[in-house]
Amino acid sequence: MTKIPHRLYLTEDQMPRQWYNLRADMKEQPDPLLNPGTLEPLRTEELYPIFCEALARQEMDGQTRFFDIPEPVREVYKMYRPSPLIRAYNLEKALGTPAKIYYKFEGNNTSGSHKLNSAVAQAYYAKEQGITRLTTETGAGQWGTALAEACSYFGIDLDVFMVKCSYEQKPFRKAVMGVFDARVTPSPSMTTEAGRKILSENPDTTGSLGCAISEAVESAVSTPNSRYVLGSVLNQVLLHQSIIGLESALAMEQLGEYPDVVVGCAGGGSNLGGLIAPFMRDKLTGIRNPRIVAVEPASCPSFTRGKYAYDFCDTGKVTPMARMYTLGSGFIPSANHAGGLRYHGMSPILSKLYHDGYMEAVSYKQTEVFEAAVRFAKLETILPAPESAHAIKGAMDVALQCKETGEEKTILFGLTGTGYFDMTAYESYLNGSMNDHVPTDEELQKGFDSLPDIPQNKNI
Amino acid sequence: MTKIPHRLYLTEDQMPRQWYNLRADMKEQPDPLLNPGTLEPLRTEELYPIFCEALARQEMDGQTRFFDIPEPVREVYKMYRPSPLIRAYNLEKALGTPAKIYYKFEGNNTSGSHKLNSAVAQAYYAKEQGITRLTTETGAGQWGTALAEACSYFGIDLDVFMVKCSYEQKPFRKAVMGVFDARVTPSPSMTTEAGRKILSENPDTTGSLGCAISEAVESAVSTPNSRYVLGSVLNQVLLHQSIIGLESALAMEQLGEYPDVVVGCAGGGSNLGGLIAPFMRDKLTGIRNPRIVAVEPASCPSFTRGKYAYDFCDTGKVTPMARMYTLGSGFIPSANHAGGLRYHGMSPILSKLYHDGYMEAVSYKQTEVFEAAVRFAKLETILPAPESAHAIKGAMDVALQCKETGEEKTILFGLTGTGYFDMTAYESYLNGSMNDHVPTDEELQKGFDSLPDIPQNKNI
Repeated sequence: MTKIPHRLYLTEDQMPRQWYNLRADMKEQPDPLLNPGTLEPLRTEELYPIFCEALARQEMDGQTRFFDIPEPVREVYKMYRPSPLIRAYNLEKALGTPAKIYYKFEGNNTSGSHKLNSAVAQAYYAKEQGITRLTTETGAGQWGTALAEACSYFGIDLDVFMVKCSYEQKPFRKAVMGVFDARVTPSPSMTTEAGRKILSENPDTTGSLGCAISEAVESAVSTPNSRYVLGSVLNQVLLHQSIIGLESALAMEQLGEYPDVVVGCAGGGSNLGGLIAPFMRDKLTGIRNPRIVAVEPASCPSFTRGKYAYDFCDTGKVTPMARMYTLGSGFIPSANHAGGLRYHGMSPILSKLYHDGYMEAVSYKQTEVFEAAVRFAKLETILPAPESAHAIKGAMDVALQCKETGEEKTILFGLTGTGYFDMTAYESYLNGSMNDHVPTDEELQKGFDSLPDIPQNKNI
Repeated sequence: MTKIPHRLYLTEDQMPRQWYNLRADMKEQPDPLLNPGTLEPLRTEELYPIFCEALARQEMDGQTRFFDIPEPVREVYKMYRPSPLIRAYNLEKALGTPAKIYYKFEGNNTSGSHKLNSAVAQAYYAKEQGITRLTTETGAGQWGTALAEACSYFGIDLDVFMVKCSYEQKPFRKAVMGVFDARVTPSPSMTTEAGRKILSENPDTTGSLGCAISEAVESAVSTPNSRYVLGSVLNQVLLHQSIIGLESALAMEQLGEYPDVVVGCAGGGSNLGGLIAPFMRDKLTGIRNPRIVAVEPASCPSFTRGKYAYDFCDTGKVTPMARMYTLGSGFIPSANHAGGLRYHGMSPILSKLYHDGYMEAVSYKQTEVFEAAVRFAKLETILPAPESAHAIKGAMDVALQCKETGEEKTILFGLTGTGYFDMTAYESYLNGSMNDHVPTDEELQKGFDSLPDIPQNKNI
């Protein structure tokens, strides 16, 4: 038998031409979005002032199994995709595990992560509708960079509200977005009502994704011909990100492999939802039964310590309400360098699947995550993003379990991106100043107290 | 006819198993290295205190056409190679050129550049000889990062002398090297005699590659079981970097293409020498006749305004002397953000080829280089390193010439790396504060005055 290569790239011809919509195979749909005023299920049209129409329809469509990837989007995908499926031979050897470890690496593009997959789609649909300006938020800065690239490509203006602590920790992210002509504002800012309100209540806040979302949404809906876009959590984002899983499944098939365990980091769910899509489909339809493991930071543990409840997607409470695993939109996560995972909620699709027992979740403290990141970098030559390192740590632990049991399992994890803009974080790890704070029950309770007091939340 | 794909990756099986030594096909060899004391041609053994033996032999071997790539080196290559050959469809379209533009992209690894190709080889040979510590210099930081990765992989200690202005402009480069356990010292430093001497003469100097080389060499030869390694200029480095050109030639052959023009940036020559290797071979052996174009910064114009003379490779004048295009080891280039191109000399192999008329050279000011870089990033989704952007600008100009003449030429250029650690430079471009100083004739003369006053230099 030929040895399996270190890296497998699909050819351009083999690239998927459709995205896969996981909801079409779910036995029960995620609970509907609610209009916060009426508490009635949201109608698609009600989303049109916020999202452009094609995206609003994708957001609400639980039936259509496959969506054609528009030709112009595929043309951009071809500029940085397919991404490689990599066999982690050195990591396996160093761990002494009988398990085979594969990872799908999404970091080899200038956004530095998988975020470009949805950014290109969202910018394209906006362009199609004649939208001239988009707004968004960014935490770690990867989504903002991705969207800046996509908007520059399609000729759309972009305003990015960047979580203040990331803005300060990662000055060069702002510069990259600037190369692509995006305007970047640290959030909370005085440019929106939501920002001013948050600042008046908490002048020293370093911001949060939830808060930046409030500002970006307000800025979009109050400006003509503008729309808001989001890089995670939403159903449409998971749809676009299914390209990750579809490519992974094809590549593994070519190698004669199938993952027994699929591991992904989970912040809002964009990568995890995309990575697991075809494998979860097999599970939902009874064809195969892979273990699916979500990995989150112990400092922001939506799955492992959150509640499955209706909540706002933002801190300013201007968005529709979604039923999801949440720590409450008022939860303030402690400083954690995985900015992309510092979100109070979780994708409603993934939340439903987790609630129904199709997935597991684990959490890790950031020091052990960075320990895994540095070990991985030395063995596999890729310096991972802090977010991605959560998946590495999760996969390593599964591989070490295999070592104990002697099981030759096949593990697939998602390496979402590179850590080149996260060196402040690495420095704090290397010099021992990293903070491992985990929220106390009292701190969590404060977040839960911010949950909407509505009938749907009575029994949580 | 099938459309040529955007990206072509060779398979692992197709990867070259040998490096190609350009000297074996040169009609005249480059002039020999000289012992600065005796002015006699250097013997291989005289290099053993500086370089490990296998590398010293590669350095001096003008006969052996192909060197087997050792298996452990190939194993590391497989972790980040083959690198893609990319068709720049969008750039072609934006320029309105009939030319076809391809580029070989070496930036998709954590060192961010092609430098890893030689770092892995040099660290491997050191390990084989039982060397426990290496020293080197780094300008832009890409070589230092590459070597840090390679040394970490093979278990060798590493001391990096980093040009002070880069050390200050790129604090995060130091952190990346730290992840891979390298010690980084800003140069000139007080830790070496060479550094102390340079500082006493010029306390405010922001350093130079030539100066960092002096310190690294001194640190190696004065410490047991240590050797010095260099990321460019040397014959051995061009040998290792031939992997770039060999892969490019194979990939182009698969597409039924051959470059009419090959364009590469030139600092010390590591990328250019590697990229052009198989194409220059065709030229030397009379099989084909591609144009070969070297692109350098106008602020450090070794080819276009330098002299072909014997010179020291370092500022402290501790190295052997090489005949090359040089601005004089005492030349201080003005601040330029392409730190990897701020070197007074040039590969002796490339210098000889240029002198004998096999290559052309052009120079550009940095503002026009960054203009090309930003345009390229928006069109091709990759943010280039400032060094690489010189090749982009060069290739764009060739393509625009084709537009004028209507010639459908095939252009290949080398995109050596990514600019994620160069955001200070991009910021200065974007805010209009970039300096375009070009050395005056008087400034150049000062550099030439530092050339060794030896018989071989009498007729320059």
